[in-house]
Amino acid sequence: VPQNPERVGAIIAAAGSGQRMGGVDKLFALLAGEPVLAHTLRAFQTCSAIDEIVLVLSPKNLAQGKLLVEERGWWKVNEVCIGGAERHDSVREGLGRLKGCEWVVIHDGARPLVSQQLINCGLDEAKDCGAAVAAVPVKDTLKIVGPRLEVERTPNRSSFWAVQTPQVFRYDLIRDAYSRPQAPAVDDAVLVERLGHKVKVYKGSYDNLKITTQEDLAIAEVILQRRSSFQ
Amino acid sequence: VPQNPERVGAIIAAAGSGQRMGGVDKLFALLAGEPVLAHTLRAFQTCSAIDEIVLVLSPKNLAQGKLLVEERGWWKVNEVCIGGAERHDSVREGLGRLKGCEWVVIHDGARPLVSQQLINCGLDEAKDCGAAVAAVPVKDTLKIVGPRLEVERTPNRSSFWAVQTPQVFRYDLIRDAYSRPQAPAVDDAVLVERLGHKVKVYKGSYDNLKITTQEDLAIAEVILQRRSSFQ
Repeated sequence: VPQNPERVGAIIAAAGSGQRMGGVDKLFALLAGEPVLAHTLRAFQTCSAIDEIVLVLSPKNLAQGKLLVEERGWWKVNEVCIGGAERHDSVREGLGRLKGCEWVVIHDGARPLVSQQLINCGLDEAKDCGAAVAAVPVKDTLKIVGPRLEVERTPNRSSFWAVQTPQVFRYDLIRDAYSRPQAPAVDDAVLVERLGHKVKVYKGSYDNLKITTQEDLAIAEVILQRRSSFQ
Repeated sequence: VPQNPERVGAIIAAAGSGQRMGGVDKLFALLAGEPVLAHTLRAFQTCSAIDEIVLVLSPKNLAQGKLLVEERGWWKVNEVCIGGAERHDSVREGLGRLKGCEWVVIHDGARPLVSQQLINCGLDEAKDCGAAVAAVPVKDTLKIVGPRLEVERTPNRSSFWAVQTPQVFRYDLIRDAYSRPQAPAVDDAVLVERLGHKVKVYKGSYDNLKITTQEDLAIAEVILQRRSSFQ
């Protein structure tokens, strides 16, 4: 894949099965009257820094996803494709379908409250070392707990951050990380970390939650209502 | 303080300043039409395992807190007193005012969604080794981040739990921990851990959130609505 200088692609990873919503697919559950996925896609479509979008879906959502993109006229979405069994399979698939970008923004389809500002911050931060991930400082006290549910240690929480997406990478760096045989990873950044490459953290938002349960959906609804009442 | 076998006291730590609510005191903010603190106190008053309650407040809330307890007729509340500048000062004060208990349940006043079941589970678990804290497995991917916001490490999150209250202790154990000169602590359990004593973790609830912002309050409202619609 040739790289166009400064061109920015986005991969929306949305091939998860969403088993925790009791049969309802979290991506097409309604949030403020619209599918969760529509909120996510709109943020990327309307972000001027984004040149193209690849949407990666599960086989059962492919038709519905294509229809959504078509109906809304979201022309930045170049590809709607099927992902793999695991998240990293889906991201790898997305990387292969980008039309040639210098930068790539990877984002969970189930994080509909992402803002243009969060996307732009990630792109700015990534310029420093080629990799930047959104995260928020952990607010809870953490305990490291052993197999018999005994506390082993209370680490100093001030150095712990909870990772979100967007995760932004120089295209050749993340492509390289994905092309090597690696153990399964909890996020994209860890693949880059394993290469010994620096990854920067930038301040995400506590609002940027991932919808996995019906309750998350209700919470997202509250956040959106509060946002619109402050505008 | 003499100990009565099997007698269980509760300390409701509610002397925090609640600066993050924009002037409104989080403890007396309305949740489903009632002060946050009323929800918390009711859970302990109606829990048959609890024999007495000490409520620790900031000076400015003392009168309002006493009035609340009186109006509701919550007879288990033996003492409503003023806490200290830090949470551990308040808990120490509460420990000194319990009328003689074998067990003590320490709980944040700003966690109104605590259930009787959660209190009872803590008492059961604490019987094993004298100390048990409610906690939930961390759902987010964690990164350990250095001072320049670079990722140092992605720890295996499966051993990390986020701590809540109730935290339940054998009275003499927690009294001993609090009587020693110690560095400030993020929770009560860590004082016991520092003595080299075992602390057990038991499964709390993701719903058992701590109200610190207006948004937390809105989220708690959603959770309560969903609870009542399932009953």
